[in-house]
Amino acid sequence: MEKQTLLKEIDESLLSFLPKEEGLQKAVMEAVNYSVLAGGKRLRPMLMLLCFRMFGGKDDSVWPFMAAIEMIHTYSLVHDDLPAMDNDEYRRGKKTTHALYGEAMGVLAGDALLNLSMETALTAFLAAPENKHIPEALAILYRASGIYGMIGGQTVDVETEEDRERDAATLDFIYALKTGALLSGAMTVGATLAGAGREKVERIRRVGDLAGKAFQIRDDILDVEGTFEELGKPIGSDEKNHKVTFVSLYGLKKAEEEVAQLTKEAMELLDSLEEEHNDLKELLLSLVDRRK
Amino acid sequence: MEKQTLLKEIDESLLSFLPKEEGLQKAVMEAVNYSVLAGGKRLRPMLMLLCFRMFGGKDDSVWPFMAAIEMIHTYSLVHDDLPAMDNDEYRRGKKTTHALYGEAMGVLAGDALLNLSMETALTAFLAAPENKHIPEALAILYRASGIYGMIGGQTVDVETEEDRERDAATLDFIYALKTGALLSGAMTVGATLAGAGREKVERIRRVGDLAGKAFQIRDDILDVEGTFEELGKPIGSDEKNHKVTFVSLYGLKKAEEEVAQLTKEAMELLDSLEEEHNDLKELLLSLVDRRK
Repeated sequence: MEKQTLLKEIDESLLSFLPKEEGLQKAVMEAVNYSVLAGGKRLRPMLMLLCFRMFGGKDDSVWPFMAAIEMIHTYSLVHDDLPAMDNDEYRRGKKTTHALYGEAMGVLAGDALLNLSMETALTAFLAAPENKHIPEALAILYRASGIYGMIGGQTVDVETEEDRERDAATLDFIYALKTGALLSGAMTVGATLAGAGREKVERIRRVGDLAGKAFQIRDDILDVEGTFEELGKPIGSDEKNHKVTFVSLYGLKKAEEEVAQLTKEAMELLDSLEEEHNDLKELLLSLVDRRK
Repeated sequence: MEKQTLLKEIDESLLSFLPKEEGLQKAVMEAVNYSVLAGGKRLRPMLMLLCFRMFGGKDDSVWPFMAAIEMIHTYSLVHDDLPAMDNDEYRRGKKTTHALYGEAMGVLAGDALLNLSMETALTAFLAAPENKHIPEALAILYRASGIYGMIGGQTVDVETEEDRERDAATLDFIYALKTGALLSGAMTVGATLAGAGREKVERIRRVGDLAGKAFQIRDDILDVEGTFEELGKPIGSDEKNHKVTFVSLYGLKKAEEEVAQLTKEAMELLDSLEEEHNDLKELLLSLVDRRK
């Protein structure tokens, strides 16, 4: 599999689920499309697809879900960037949605994207009427993005952001929910739609949890070591915002060691599955070892 | 049917779908529960249930949907009240969510509610495994709340709010989408879950559209004629905000006539259906004729 070809396929599919910019409410369509098309690694759709294929998934149910999870991820960024939250003007080197379209449209575009994710995921019933796993996959997806997942993590992040006392357990909770839940959600949705069965889905979830945590710690490291050119956003922002991160708590060396350890565990667990998983392994390794 | 008994049943069911206030992310659960329990007429769940029963619906699929639509309605109010939107401090005589919990939590609680609506509606698959209409009902619900429905209407409302040139067609669009879509969505979801069939569902949708518009014009009238005690929010706020409404465009007399005309059309259409619909009719009439 050529990663660039796959990325192109994912982008084309995603585009097909985005709204036409027309009608009196055109402004929100524009803000929605801008937000989704402003870049992004399409990591969650890619993880989902690889897990789907790993377990022999062949029907078209996965494509609406891939688009949906990217919409969810995007809406969370749009709302995170709002003045009431992180108040960020740039992301991936481009203006954030509210910076370009105004704050009200930032709120509405985020809402629209979360809602559109549902409308999109629901088309899986039409794309693959024979697939009996769609209701469960939907439940997994929206549990991962909700108060017991991403939103829960974001809540604690917002509440404790400037708390110098934020301890390791709190940080762990935030990493597991804010970043980890949607990453492992992507993988479990893929496996579920392919009919992998409970025991294997749980193992995939655990792989996702471990890799998700390593991914987030890598993020902290890059915020210290990266450059604006590489990241497309200001570096050192965690320190500037007095944000307690894994790096600020334990230092860079320990952070690198933790990434290595989590990655090792995740890969051993992944290797314990008999299904062919070279592509998935390669992608996960590239994520935790990324430079941007 | 005793309306108060029904309302109590609806509230109890709704409560059962709300999160326990526990865990590190307790703050968002509190804000979610506060928002939902701060009052409200439970109009959309009630309309949904009456339509479901009108077409002979008997299973438990409708209850998760009723809770879900109330969550959607509530999230839309929470986000509408944000400083970036209408900037309202009070609603139904109580502090708005962001006024009480802060702006970031206002954003997050709204997001959490929309997400929770999906998690809740999806439990219909477990509550009524035999009901084949659930996927279609989900699609109807989230189309009604999305960019081609409620969010679309809200976008145009925000964009043209202070536009003295806002014309009748624009106002019509806003009323149809911002208020009307979710009201007629409630009714069509109920009918769909009961297996009413396409032609009757469409007739119910039209009844909802007409009643929804009458409902919104009644809102405009009450903003001029009501009192703080009756409404639980400041009156005259439309005029204060230079908001173009049906009343400001056409005057009170024409507004009353329009409500009467829309109501007449809606009732004639409803009466053209052979299914028993006294309860539904009574509820709709009380809405368009309400004093608060």
